[in-house]
Amino acid sequence: MSDLTHFNEQGRAKMVDVSDKQETVRIAVACSSIEVNRLIHSQISEGTNKKGDVFAVAQVAGIMAAKQTSSIIPMCHPIPLTGVNISFQWDIDESAGRYVVRIEAEAKTKGVTGVEMEALTAASAAALTIYDMCKAAGKDMVIGPTYLQHKSGGKNGDYDRS
Amino acid sequence: MSDLTHFNEQGRAKMVDVSDKQETVRIAVACSSIEVNRLIHSQISEGTNKKGDVFAVAQVAGIMAAKQTSSIIPMCHPIPLTGVNISFQWDIDESAGRYVVRIEAEAKTKGVTGVEMEALTAASAAALTIYDMCKAAGKDMVIGPTYLQHKSGGKNGDYDRS
Amino acid sequence: MSDLTHFNEQGRAKMVDVSDKQETVRIAVACSSIEVNRLIHSQISEGTNKKGDVFAVAQVAGIMAAKQTSSIIPMCHPIPLTGVNISFQWDIDESAGRYVVRIEAEAKTKGVTGVEMEALTAASAAALTIYDMCKAAGKDMVIGPTYLQHKSGGKNGDYDRS
Amino acid sequence: MSDLTHFNEQGRAKMVDVSDKQETVRIAVACSSIEVNRLIHSQISEGTNKKGDVFAVAQVAGIMAAKQTSSIIPMCHPIPLTGVNISFQWDIDESAGRYVVRIEAEAKTKGVTGVEMEALTAASAAALTIYDMCKAAGKDMVIGPTYLQHKSGGKNGDYDRS
Amino acid sequence: MSDLTHFNEQGRAKMVDVSDKQETVRIAVACSSIEVNRLIHSQISEGTNKKGDVFAVAQVAGIMAAKQTSSIIPMCHPIPLTGVNISFQWDIDESAGRYVVRIEAEAKTKGVTGVEMEALTAASAAALTIYDMCKAAGKDMVIGPTYLQHKSGGKNGDYDRS
Amino acid sequence: MSDLTHFNEQGRAKMVDVSDKQETVRIAVACSSIEVNRLIHSQISEGTNKKGDVFAVAQVAGIMAAKQTSSIIPMCHPIPLTGVNISFQWDIDESAGRYVVRIEAEAKTKGVTGVEMEALTAASAAALTIYDMCKAAGKDMVIGPTYLQHKSGGKNGDYDRS
Repeated sequence: MSDLTHFNEQGRAKMVDVSDKQETVRIAVACSSIEVNRLIHSQISEGTNKKGDVFAVAQVAGIMAAKQTSSIIPMCHPIPLTGVNISFQWDIDESAGRYVVRIEAEAKTKGVTGVEMEALTAASAAALTIYDMCKAAGKDMVIGPTYLQHKSGGKNGDYDRS
Repeated sequence: MSDLTHFNEQGRAKMVDVSDKQETVRIAVACSSIEVNRLIHSQISEGTNKKGDVFAVAQVAGIMAAKQTSSIIPMCHPIPLTGVNISFQWDIDESAGRYVVRIEAEAKTKGVTGVEMEALTAASAAALTIYDMCKAAGKDMVIGPTYLQHKSGGKNGDYDRS
Repeated sequence: MSDLTHFNEQGRAKMVDVSDKQETVRIAVACSSIEVNRLIHSQISEGTNKKGDVFAVAQVAGIMAAKQTSSIIPMCHPIPLTGVNISFQWDIDESAGRYVVRIEAEAKTKGVTGVEMEALTAASAAALTIYDMCKAAGKDMVIGPTYLQHKSGGKNGDYDRS
Repeated sequence: MSDLTHFNEQGRAKMVDVSDKQETVRIAVACSSIEVNRLIHSQISEGTNKKGDVFAVAQVAGIMAAKQTSSIIPMCHPIPLTGVNISFQWDIDESAGRYVVRIEAEAKTKGVTGVEMEALTAASAAALTIYDMCKAAGKDMVIGPTYLQHKSGGKNGDYDRS
Repeated sequence: MSDLTHFNEQGRAKMVDVSDKQETVRIAVACSSIEVNRLIHSQISEGTNKKGDVFAVAQVAGIMAAKQTSSIIPMCHPIPLTGVNISFQWDIDESAGRYVVRIEAEAKTKGVTGVEMEALTAASAAALTIYDMCKAAGKDMVIGPTYLQHKSGGKNGDYDRS
Repeated sequence: MSDLTHFNEQGRAKMVDVSDKQETVRIAVACSSIEVNRLIHSQISEGTNKKGDVFAVAQVAGIMAAKQTSSIIPMCHPIPLTGVNISFQWDIDESAGRYVVRIEAEAKTKGVTGVEMEALTAASAAALTIYDMCKAAGKDMVIGPTYLQHKSGGKNGDYDRS
């Protein structure tokens, strides 16, 4: 006699069906950041990091990671990204010795699911790449907070972080 | 003088043109199985496998493999999967000492080609993952038969294994 | 107050530590098969499959899949494969209308873990590729049984399927 | 006349040479976290998330991402991971309505470079996967801080976050 | 006080937005070549290369690389290829001892961006694969010139190399 | 009765066994080039390409492709790269209106096989990336010749292109 329990009805994972969702233009913006020390700040700013131009490499890393999102995040649907844009901005408080790189990643598609994960993955990969390129000058860097800033497109309405 | 033979006209491979095919919802269901020994059955059932929850990991493996199908199967077209669902079921005959995990994988897309290969790849990867996680307790496991159970969508009509 | 339960101690997954294992030459041989119909047999044998030379493509697919094993099988350790060899053999019973392709995949490494999964993955990918290239001529093909035939190297001793 | 400036000497990127570094056992531990709302906490705890068992999937995602680190982080050297272990822990303050998942990822290798990036990538991918599986119940989740907790092995000495 | 310069406005990279472009059938044809020595020519022609059937493997490599284009070329948009076809032709001048393999790769999609990069990547990967399989018999092989031969589809009009 | 011909003995492909080769430091240098028009030259030099800093992106692309070599080139063994360095140099003849980017890629490993393919793949991917980023300003660019310049390490002796 067989035990007929189907295990997927007991809480395991599936990639949910989105066949019926509408194809629309969808945009998501995610933010992350990485706090670095004074030495790392000057290496990045003056282009003296021995591994190369930190922001240039981090930007490419973020864009390429965005395209790999559905192979990194298991239940994430593959979608054809139509655009990715990543920017960096220094947020510096010299007196407090605080040097923070603000990372903003925008992802865009014309597809059936949102691109929140693509934007979040891009921002995370960019931050991790900065960590990698600068870690010889200090391993105390802290990444995050990382969060969704904005989302538009799709039937659930827009989202803006308050 | 040149030898003008084009080799592709002599039997080598190509990814055939599907530009003219219609985009429709397409579903495929594939089945596989893996026969394990009594010890492995109890490890899976009781959650004592040292590598982790076997079915949970196998399910994730199958879903992720489904998304990689066109990079594993050379002539397979890339398509945007809209859903993947994998379930497991024990088929046990205690008296014969026979413990078989039945694996069913359903793949879905809204695209121009069928998803048979995605379903078959998902089922195969799930079976291989079970093998990997359990092989310390016996290498005699047997995978398969693996086959297509059902296919719908597309102009060639539906298919159901008889 | 925090709930301090570490979930990994409750049965979830990990890639087990193999840092202490010895680097030795390790070999594994896996077998699979695919049963096809008479039309598919003649297409393969006569080189008339419209997608190309079936065994040539399947062989490349199997070798490339072997190299991707640790990215397909979640808990499988990455190892540097030093050799992969896949061969095909027809097992035909004309009177019974039975046409079976026997697939044998050998994987080799000089590393700290065995290459059973690499051999099994290679054989499976080769079988799936044959299915993909021939499915226009019949979807009733059946893959498997797929199993480990031989393993040598490593401290747990050799294995030969009885 | 040619402009002979070699651009790589002006700050662009390279994967630095580590051929002379010693192969030793190296360990790194990274931490991340994700703050979720009460609904998401109960979905995870009670196993009612419609995409599946959140921590089980996140754990597999983290382990698989660790193995892909050198293809996500551009200047990161490929190394053969010998072990990855990820654990989750709830840090809950009911009165403040604060539900935080603490993520700890340990990576191990016997190789010529450290595994900080593998541990950080594993922790990040696990956090992103939790976000993905729970986002239908609230997009306000915040990931991070993400940081290196511990590192040992290699000639530069051990590191422990103070 | 913060330094508010957004670095992406200063020349760094982005994957440009193509959300508004029309989905049409698009074709691109790229050419490459590889010059080999007499020994390599005879090994390929007579099938005596110890790594296998050179053109068969190169063709599969080119097709699979075409599908990976957007993960190899950083700013390239992912598109669903609907067909890839690669052919080889010998261009031989015995008296001059010149043996050249001409490679032609055609890529096709129904999508929002052109497939020039897919065709060029396919041709390049095929050439590199020929190099790899033949290098034991001479490392003097030269790849290229590699160029776009033809492009059609899309609003910018067709292109034919003059 | 079975047809016992093993097809792999008839010319199909295998990844040849290198288990017995010695692990040594190995270096390879490959060269490629891409000829562009005057407009593209000025866009690159002045940083006005709308997709970004062309050489910075191409360099990252080349390094990342080098790490993917064994998954692009079917019979190529996976090896742990220990260093990759890519440089660009303008070779300009204003009077002839000739603008050529010379690309040099060096790959290094401590392993059992050479890194010729890694160097050649890096140079090719860098050239293809330049093509991709500049193609809006002219599709007449020509890539190559691409060739091996130098190789050292391994028992077959060093190689320098004459």
